Amino acid sequence: MNPALPLLLSVMLSKNGTATERCDLPSTLAEEIDGYGPVVRRILSAFDYGPQSGTTYHALAEFADHFGHRQVGSESLEAAIDELVVALRVAGVDRVETEPVETPVWQRGRELAALVEPRHVPLDVLGLGGSVATPPGGITAPVLVVRSFEELERRSTEVNGTIVLYNPEWTGYLPYVPYRTKGPSYAARYGAVAALVRSATPASLYTPHAGMLKYMPGYPKIPAAAVTVEDADMLTRLAKRGSNVVVHLEMSNNHTQGVSRNIVADITGSVFPEQYVIVGAHTDSWDVGQGVVDDAGGVFIGLAAMAQLRRMRLRPRRTLRLVLWTAEENGLHGAAEFVRRHRDEMDAVSLALESDIGTFAPIGLTMSGGDNTTACILRRLLTLTAPIGATRLEPADGRGSDVTKLQELGVPASVLLTRNERYFHYHHTRADTMSAVSSRDLDLCAAFWTAVAYVVADLRDMLPRG
Amino acid sequence: MNPALPLLLSVMLSKNGTATERCDLPSTLAEEIDGYGPVVRRILSAFDYGPQSGTTYHALAEFADHFGHRQVGSESLEAAIDELVVALRVAGVDRVETEPVETPVWQRGRELAALVEPRHVPLDVLGLGGSVATPPGGITAPVLVVRSFEELERRSTEVNGTIVLYNPEWTGYLPYVPYRTKGPSYAARYGAVAALVRSATPASLYTPHAGMLKYMPGYPKIPAAAVTVEDADMLTRLAKRGSNVVVHLEMSNNHTQGVSRNIVADITGSVFPEQYVIVGAHTDSWDVGQGVVDDAGGVFIGLAAMAQLRRMRLRPRRTLRLVLWTAEENGLHGAAEFVRRHRDEMDAVSLALESDIGTFAPIGLTMSGGDNTTACILRRLLTLTAPIGATRLEPADGRGSDVTKLQELGVPASVLLTRNERYFHYHHTRADTMSAVSSRDLDLCAAFWTAVAYVVADLRDMLPRG
Repeated sequence: MNPALPLLLSVMLSKNGTATERCDLPSTLAEEIDGYGPVVRRILSAFDYGPQSGTTYHALAEFADHFGHRQVGSESLEAAIDELVVALRVAGVDRVETEPVETPVWQRGRELAALVEPRHVPLDVLGLGGSVATPPGGITAPVLVVRSFEELERRSTEVNGTIVLYNPEWTGYLPYVPYRTKGPSYAARYGAVAALVRSATPASLYTPHAGMLKYMPGYPKIPAAAVTVEDADMLTRLAKRGSNVVVHLEMSNNHTQGVSRNIVADITGSVFPEQYVIVGAHTDSWDVGQGVVDDAGGVFIGLAAMAQLRRMRLRPRRTLRLVLWTAEENGLHGAAEFVRRHRDEMDAVSLALESDIGTFAPIGLTMSGGDNTTACILRRLLTLTAPIGATRLEPADGRGSDVTKLQELGVPASVLLTRNERYFHYHHTRADTMSAVSSRDLDLCAAFWTAVAYVVADLRDMLPRG
Repeated sequence: MNPALPLLLSVMLSKNGTATERCDLPSTLAEEIDGYGPVVRRILSAFDYGPQSGTTYHALAEFADHFGHRQVGSESLEAAIDELVVALRVAGVDRVETEPVETPVWQRGRELAALVEPRHVPLDVLGLGGSVATPPGGITAPVLVVRSFEELERRSTEVNGTIVLYNPEWTGYLPYVPYRTKGPSYAARYGAVAALVRSATPASLYTPHAGMLKYMPGYPKIPAAAVTVEDADMLTRLAKRGSNVVVHLEMSNNHTQGVSRNIVADITGSVFPEQYVIVGAHTDSWDVGQGVVDDAGGVFIGLAAMAQLRRMRLRPRRTLRLVLWTAEENGLHGAAEFVRRHRDEMDAVSLALESDIGTFAPIGLTMSGGDNTTACILRRLLTLTAPIGATRLEPADGRGSDVTKLQELGVPASVLLTRNERYFHYHHTRADTMSAVSSRDLDLCAAFWTAVAYVVADLRDMLPRG
């Protein structure tokens, strides 16, 4: 998922996903949507204890175990992309291409951190993506703990020469992100020599979480790393007691430029081949765990949707395009390149679907960029997927990552909503593995994704834009 | 908690803690217990948002942050024991002594593990306590995955020269433990060169769990380590697919003998100084995390109980004895030495209380070793602690660790029951830190422990034995 997103609110939807305006769809349109009932039931039953049951999990597990994590710049990512291209050909899509993406490449080197005063305790850290290295031999400095940027400002005279630890209270990912992204620069402004940040999670089993930082122009670049919730809290307690808290930090990272690839695969539309419904996810991951929840699960339900439509010989009226972005984790570079290259097609995209916040049990969609009729169409469509429990339409509320690049160009977008309460437990950690997902949930996500993508791509008209 | 316990069932109690015989306590005894209502309310209110609120957490946090984990053989354990002796003197107990305990000492050395075929993936392991080292340079061997001892037997001809991975389905700690304790020897019997075992937990965020093994006489001693649930499952999937799964394991452990100390601290009884109620917990921990849930929390609620009774000038009729055992984790050596040394006093112990399965929100007690009257007395007593929600009396069902050494000599015993559903998430891991406990829960445990210990120690008669 994107490290830092604006809060996007579709104003025609209230928080709980109910329409604030009533749905008065023309009866022909309502009947058209309802007419997809039989085909949606066939799609759902293929996955829901049907012949495709278990296949998505199985394919995802083989992929995850074979390639592991897939950081931009790694051989495993490019090999995984090659493999996905082959899988799409085997699935029988009409066209599959890769498109080059130039991207910064950041490689984690040796990382070592320890509390050295008041006693020696090793600290498990993950350097933040994009961080500069420490000088050889590392940095040893007293720690200044702050709970907020306000506290940093208040104590700005104490910052010089320290390692600033940001330990904000967890109230959610969006309020947290600025500490990780901008925190290092803000601390450097007052002379900090390094920054530590509490990991981004409501739940920890001594689990450090990776993530990007974003150096701000004009400030010294200082090394920065995420510490576990447990260590952040220990350092905070020690500091509160007035201990002289000293930490040693060593990081040897490597910054280069590289080229990766987006994958674009089409099932060409039967009537409007130059109109599109896009199904998106990203192939790259952080360099820990297996990158399953973030985001190979999204990749594989997209792949499952394409394969299932070919298997059922269902060709929608407009082109169904699976886009597997690269270089999401280090700043949406793949999505940015995609919209640059495909800018002329953006007006012809009826809806962009994205799965990047987990493939747990599906419950519905977000919506951004449409109008009240769009919401009513999607809500009517979601009555067809009620048998698997996916019925909700919610405002985006900041959910959406690569797809925001399309939203910025006016494309209506929907993000897959699942029971993802545990999403941030795994996010960017060594625990983002196959053990975090279930075969049953993946079946339901694949079923839902196939149904939604097909129906929207096949409707007589494109979705209205807001 | 003890690595391997017999299943103890107090037959007079049904599973849900209700008496299978009715309680017909003599009215004088019932009235005697009810008469403690006012003093119990004073105790509870001291901790329950009263003047002692927050103090147990605060003291525990200082201890945990200062000493960290406290493995037998470490300086930190002995320094922690010294500090606890001082704390007990400050609390004003009548007597505090340490008693030497001879114990094996096992020290973890460098540990390194990786999947090397079909691809290279580092594996986070924790060598099992007591494990021999690998030869210098480590062991590299194919992995044989088994789900059960039955599968090991069935596939015994495939074992020779392999690293056996036990990946049993998690159905609870007690059924799991034999894989960790005896698994290495069972595998060695058929020629395995090392053993891996899935970590003992229902929930993992790539979290390895330490624990003891127990080599069985007559079999070669092979090195053994715990792997995370995630890695166990990955290795299992790879093996199922027919991959040649090869792991490299390096461990350099150190085995010696050492001396640690139990702490025995008394508030001398006013009427029956040679009768006892024992309040127990253990000071040692595994060599990861801070050993808070297991078991510094238990130590500090015991300490809080002693201090609170002195603070309230409450001296029970019989002696209240806090016993802080050492060398629990490596095989109950402290408790074994305690009962050897204090054997003559065991008939005079009315009840032994133990806290070693977490200090989450208290809900009641287990009971073993008493008769129906004992159960009725405890149940009546537990009506007095209803204001803090601690009312249950349950059969021991294998709960109890050091205290089992006293049970074996006929001492009635009760274990503190808390809402410890998450206990095994933290158990023997780097995540067993202050972040796993809450100040409020510790207040309630301290209140409950103080009340129960005081009332049982002060009753006119000792509890009947079963």
